[in-house]
Amino acid sequence: MVIRCKAAVAWEPGKPVSIEEVEVAPPKEHEVRIKIAVTGVCHTDWTYLYDCEKGVKTLPFPLILGHEAAGVVESVGPGVTAVQPGDKVIPVLLPHCDDCEFCLSSKTNLCKKNHEKLQQCVLADGTSRFTCRGQQVHQFSGLGTFSEYTVVPEYNVAKIHQDAPLDRVCLLGCGVATGYGAALNAGKVERGSVCAVFGLGAIGLAAVMGCKAAGASRIIGVDINAEKREIAKKFGVSEFVNPNDHSKPIQEVLVEMTSGGVDYSFECVGNVTLMRAAFESCNGAWGTCVIVGWTEKNLLSVSPKDLVLGRQLKGSFLGGWKSVCSLPKLVEDYMNGRILLDEFVTHTLSLEEINHAFELMISGKSIRSVIKM
Amino acid sequence: MVIRCKAAVAWEPGKPVSIEEVEVAPPKEHEVRIKIAVTGVCHTDWTYLYDCEKGVKTLPFPLILGHEAAGVVESVGPGVTAVQPGDKVIPVLLPHCDDCEFCLSSKTNLCKKNHEKLQQCVLADGTSRFTCRGQQVHQFSGLGTFSEYTVVPEYNVAKIHQDAPLDRVCLLGCGVATGYGAALNAGKVERGSVCAVFGLGAIGLAAVMGCKAAGASRIIGVDINAEKREIAKKFGVSEFVNPNDHSKPIQEVLVEMTSGGVDYSFECVGNVTLMRAAFESCNGAWGTCVIVGWTEKNLLSVSPKDLVLGRQLKGSFLGGWKSVCSLPKLVEDYMNGRILLDEFVTHTLSLEEINHAFELMISGKSIRSVIKM
Repeated sequence: MVIRCKAAVAWEPGKPVSIEEVEVAPPKEHEVRIKIAVTGVCHTDWTYLYDCEKGVKTLPFPLILGHEAAGVVESVGPGVTAVQPGDKVIPVLLPHCDDCEFCLSSKTNLCKKNHEKLQQCVLADGTSRFTCRGQQVHQFSGLGTFSEYTVVPEYNVAKIHQDAPLDRVCLLGCGVATGYGAALNAGKVERGSVCAVFGLGAIGLAAVMGCKAAGASRIIGVDINAEKREIAKKFGVSEFVNPNDHSKPIQEVLVEMTSGGVDYSFECVGNVTLMRAAFESCNGAWGTCVIVGWTEKNLLSVSPKDLVLGRQLKGSFLGGWKSVCSLPKLVEDYMNGRILLDEFVTHTLSLEEINHAFELMISGKSIRSVIKM
Repeated sequence: MVIRCKAAVAWEPGKPVSIEEVEVAPPKEHEVRIKIAVTGVCHTDWTYLYDCEKGVKTLPFPLILGHEAAGVVESVGPGVTAVQPGDKVIPVLLPHCDDCEFCLSSKTNLCKKNHEKLQQCVLADGTSRFTCRGQQVHQFSGLGTFSEYTVVPEYNVAKIHQDAPLDRVCLLGCGVATGYGAALNAGKVERGSVCAVFGLGAIGLAAVMGCKAAGASRIIGVDINAEKREIAKKFGVSEFVNPNDHSKPIQEVLVEMTSGGVDYSFECVGNVTLMRAAFESCNGAWGTCVIVGWTEKNLLSVSPKDLVLGRQLKGSFLGGWKSVCSLPKLVEDYMNGRILLDEFVTHTLSLEEINHAFELMISGKSIRSVIKM
């Protein structure tokens, strides 16, 4: 049965989203309809709304954004065995089919299942399950969680602990998992190492938390927002550097502070100038720079001799976690006090306030806003 | 006592070297005077002679180039304990003091000992041991093996097996160790993996040999010199691709050939366009591109999202070998038939023919020329 509910529809790029009544079709084969309880607002949502053609490709509009959520299974389509109605779940933008070449490799968390379709913001059959005012509305990455209900492929659903507080663990669907895993899975930060994290938004602060969990001896937070100094301490930053306080390039400041450069640096913004700074902040003989921020706008340029002499460049997508398999464990880590989540949530808003959530994020006033449906 | 002998002196950048009688001062404290038996001619020597300001910084001239040699210790200065007169040795451009932060780390083969001085082509006291026509002549990287005798720091001397054939193992002083180690130590190529090597000069062919030793299932050699097709087979190349035979970018050719990209690629030329091609030839989810070629001319530009989604960039200097410690073992590997060296030597020339050796190299007619003193 079709469900009619509220959703935030992006009708065109560059314009605020609009709260509409939408129709959510029943799940087809291997699909799951989820009643979204809470959705985080991620910078990537903003980017695909306001940075089209400037920073990223233009997705098909109209579009329902949102990809960092938690909810409860409402119904399942034919063939779904992993979840059933009533299960608490996190819909994840990375599927895990457990069958493709990528899923079978320990070296990546990507999955080829429905890849092209998800990129086109539709499901396996090439259509979306959302309709509004008679028009098909696309669903971001096959999710589209800025809606009271959505339908996603079963491969994109992580079943989580039934006692998990959805208004917190939703953050594990993207931001916190991304930063935390960048330190643990991509950086493989070692006990006693010296780390620098560039950009102290939710992803950067989660990277800090990952560095701390790995036993880093120094964690240097870098941000041009002076208010981040105090905030970042809670997550484990031991030193804070504001590039605006220095006349020389920030990489020189860090290399001096650490007598040769950090062991691991993390770029959590998506700015190629900052990526280069993060790379050049690394120890020249062995430093590893992990790119976490996303940009399609520019190329990252580095000196080949920096690579030859020992600096390394890698990246991390969704923290390197095998999505559907890893998220339930991360949820339990939070429930057991091993991961902070409460501290990321600075604002709890209603769906009607979602454009305000974007404003809070862009102005640096929030770490994470969560939207309670 | 000062030794008078023949050497190839580079009086100024961009001009052929000139065979001169030079004076070689006795070794000072912690220095070793070596009677050079054989020296390989490496592309780096050519680069610092003919590519100054274009591709690399200008070194101080006059200068004796050469850094890929083998010889016998003639005398030692005060404090030298590791070698004695009569020992067969390879002088290495990377020292190993076994005491600095770098030497104590397993993550790098760099060493801080005398670093600045060696870069300035002088020894620890700031002077060179070469004089010609009353002028001090610098020694490339503190070595300067295009001479019948040279004096180098003891930390730059690897004592090797007394039965080692010097006209072969000299190649382990740079080119062959560099390529071979790039595959084994930097790439860490795994059994069954698919590799591509860009540029099939001595370093590239040695990288091929490293991939083969690691058990790669496919090794794709890439070179615009069609004659390399047959040569490369001897070293382990299973497929040869000449970019000139294709209208599309070589990275697209390789991604198609391998249904998604290679596991490991090696750039062994020092050209940023080729580096990018090597990077983009890698599997997008886990491929590792190792930069082996040296250039100071341009920056390497890559797409950040390639990094985020899984491609990695690293480099390798002297193959990652802890120089003085590792070379004796590599010499024995050759003597035991585990490493090819004979096949690299296409020309054996006299010191007087050294400019001809450069021509052979630049025209692609030689793999390695060795100069017998």
